[in-house]
Amino acid sequence: MNNVIEAIDYTLATQEIAIYLQTLQQQICQMLTSVEPNATFIVEPWQHISGGGGITAVLEAGDVIEKAGVNFSAINGKNLPAAATRTHLSLAISGFQAIGLSVIIHPRNPYVPTSHANWRFIVLEAEDTPQCWWFGGGFDLTPYYGFFEDCRYWHQAAAAACRPFGHDVYPDFKQNCDNYFYLQHRQEARGIGGIFYDDLNNLADKRWSFANSFAFMRGSSRQFTSAYQHIINKRLAIPFTAEERAFQAYRRGRYVEFNLLHDRGTLFGLQSLGRIESILVSLPPQVAWLYQRPTTMVNAEQQLQQFLQPRDWLA
Amino acid sequence: MNNVIEAIDYTLATQEIAIYLQTLQQQICQMLTSVEPNATFIVEPWQHISGGGGITAVLEAGDVIEKAGVNFSAINGKNLPAAATRTHLSLAISGFQAIGLSVIIHPRNPYVPTSHANWRFIVLEAEDTPQCWWFGGGFDLTPYYGFFEDCRYWHQAAAAACRPFGHDVYPDFKQNCDNYFYLQHRQEARGIGGIFYDDLNNLADKRWSFANSFAFMRGSSRQFTSAYQHIINKRLAIPFTAEERAFQAYRRGRYVEFNLLHDRGTLFGLQSLGRIESILVSLPPQVAWLYQRPTTMVNAEQQLQQFLQPRDWLA
Repeated sequence: MNNVIEAIDYTLATQEIAIYLQTLQQQICQMLTSVEPNATFIVEPWQHISGGGGITAVLEAGDVIEKAGVNFSAINGKNLPAAATRTHLSLAISGFQAIGLSVIIHPRNPYVPTSHANWRFIVLEAEDTPQCWWFGGGFDLTPYYGFFEDCRYWHQAAAAACRPFGHDVYPDFKQNCDNYFYLQHRQEARGIGGIFYDDLNNLADKRWSFANSFAFMRGSSRQFTSAYQHIINKRLAIPFTAEERAFQAYRRGRYVEFNLLHDRGTLFGLQSLGRIESILVSLPPQVAWLYQRPTTMVNAEQQLQQFLQPRDWLA
Repeated sequence: MNNVIEAIDYTLATQEIAIYLQTLQQQICQMLTSVEPNATFIVEPWQHISGGGGITAVLEAGDVIEKAGVNFSAINGKNLPAAATRTHLSLAISGFQAIGLSVIIHPRNPYVPTSHANWRFIVLEAEDTPQCWWFGGGFDLTPYYGFFEDCRYWHQAAAAACRPFGHDVYPDFKQNCDNYFYLQHRQEARGIGGIFYDDLNNLADKRWSFANSFAFMRGSSRQFTSAYQHIINKRLAIPFTAEERAFQAYRRGRYVEFNLLHDRGTLFGLQSLGRIESILVSLPPQVAWLYQRPTTMVNAEQQLQQFLQPRDWLA
C-alpha cells in the first residue's frame, strides 16, 4: 500500500466534499451572524470561466464583524495553477478539479483577533497516473493585542483536531503554519499561527487515507468554528479607543502585504482566473500605511512582535 | 557604432548621476513643501546590506499632501536582482550598481491625482563584457476624479520632454507606460499614464548615447516636477466630501494591489533586500477594500474607468 495512492471514486468524493464544505459555509456564516446582530451576509453565486463556480458570502460593516468573507468554490480546468501544490509536479495533467472553502474574518474591535481558515481538496486527471488527489487546509489567528489564554485555547483546539491521527500531527502542522505565515520581507510572523497542511494523501504517509483526510477536514473545521466563536464572544465587549483602532488599521497593512506578496491561496485564485472580488475579499476593510508612528503605537508594536514570536503555546 | 555599447567612465558617470538625483530629490521636496505649509519632510539616510545606501525623505499627514516619499538610493552588490531589467540577461555578472530616485505622492484632496515617478541608472560589471549600462524611468498619474485638461497638460509635458530626441519617442514611451501600469488581474488601467522607459542605451538605438540618455533623465524630471506642481495648485482648493474621500480610499486599494502584485520597482527593492520602510513608503496612507459599494461610489467608479481608457491625450 505504501507509495501507491488510494484509489477513490472521484465523482463521489468531490460530491461529498462539495456538500460538506457548503454545509460548513452555512455553519460558519450562522456562527458569525450569532455574534453580529446588525449585519447580514450577502450571498452571491458565480460561474468560473473554465468550469464550475462558487458561492461567495460576505458580511460587511457590522458592529462586531467589520468584514468577513466565507467563500466556497468548486472549479475545474485543464491546466493546474502552479500555486495549487507546494510539490513540483512532473505529470502530464489533462485536467483538475479544486474544491475549497476560504474564510477570513476581520472584526471591528482591535481586541478581537483576525482569523483565517481554508480547506481544500484537489484531484488531477493525469496521463499514466490513474489517481492523484490531495487535501490541504488549516487555520491561523492574527491578534493586534495578544491574550495568552486565547492563543493557548486556539492551539488546544488545533491540537484536539490533530490528536485522533497521531501525536506527531499537531507539532508538525503547527510548524508548517509558523513557516507559512511568515513575512519574509519584514522578518515577522503574521500572527500566532495554528495549523497548516498541504499535499495530504496516503502516498507518503499511509495514515492519510481518503477517509482519514476527509475526517480531519471535518474535525479541524469544527474546532476552528467553535474556538473562534469562543474568542470573539470573550473579547467583543472590551472598550477600545480611536488610537487602538488606528493601530489595528496599521497592522492590517501586514495582512495585505502577506496576501498580495506571499499567499499561495491568493496566487492560486489569480492564476486560475477566479472571480477577483471573491479572491480579494480577504483584504481588510480599513488599512493604513504609516511611516512615522506615534510612541504609543511603536510601543504597542514592540509588545505585539514579542507576543508573535513562535513558541509552544501548549507548554 | 551600432550594436556596440558606448564606453563610459563608470566612476564619473555614477558620481554625476548620483549628484543629479540628489539635487532633484531636494527640488521635488521643495516643490512639495511649497504647496504644503503644514508639514515637513523627515529625511533619513540608511546603509544597504551589500553596499551603498540611500536617503529617504517622507512627508506625512499634511493638509495638502497626505503622504509623499521621495527616495534616493545608490546601492551595489554582486547579484543583480531579476527585476532590474525586463531583458533576459545571459551575462555572468560579477557586480552591479543601481542609482535611482523614486517619487510617490498621495495628496489628501481626492480631486488632486496621485503621482509617481522614477529615474534610475544601472551599470553591470560582467565577465567578457567590458561595459554594460542602461537608464530607466518615467512618470505617471492616477486621478480619482479625472479632469481632461489636467491629463492633457500632463501628457504635453511628457511629450515636451521627449521631443528633442525624436518624434517617435513620446508615442513609444507613452505606450510602454500604458502597458506597464495595467492591473492584469482587474483588467484595468492604473491611471492615465505618462511615459515609461527601460533598458535605455545605445546598444539597440544609437541616439541613446550616455549624454542623451542622461539629458533625457534631466529633461523628463524637470517636466514632471513642473507639471505636477501645476496640477496640485490648480485642484488643491476644490472642496470635497467624506464620500469622495471614501471613494479615494477605496480606489487607493488598486494602487496597493499594483505595487505588491505587479510593480517591478517594488520587486527590485525586495529582491535586492533594500530598506523595507523605504520601499513600502509608496503605499497609500489610508486605504479601504469594500465588497459592496454605495451607488454613488459605483457610479463614480464607472465614470473613472471610462476616463482611464487608454487614449491619445494630445489629439
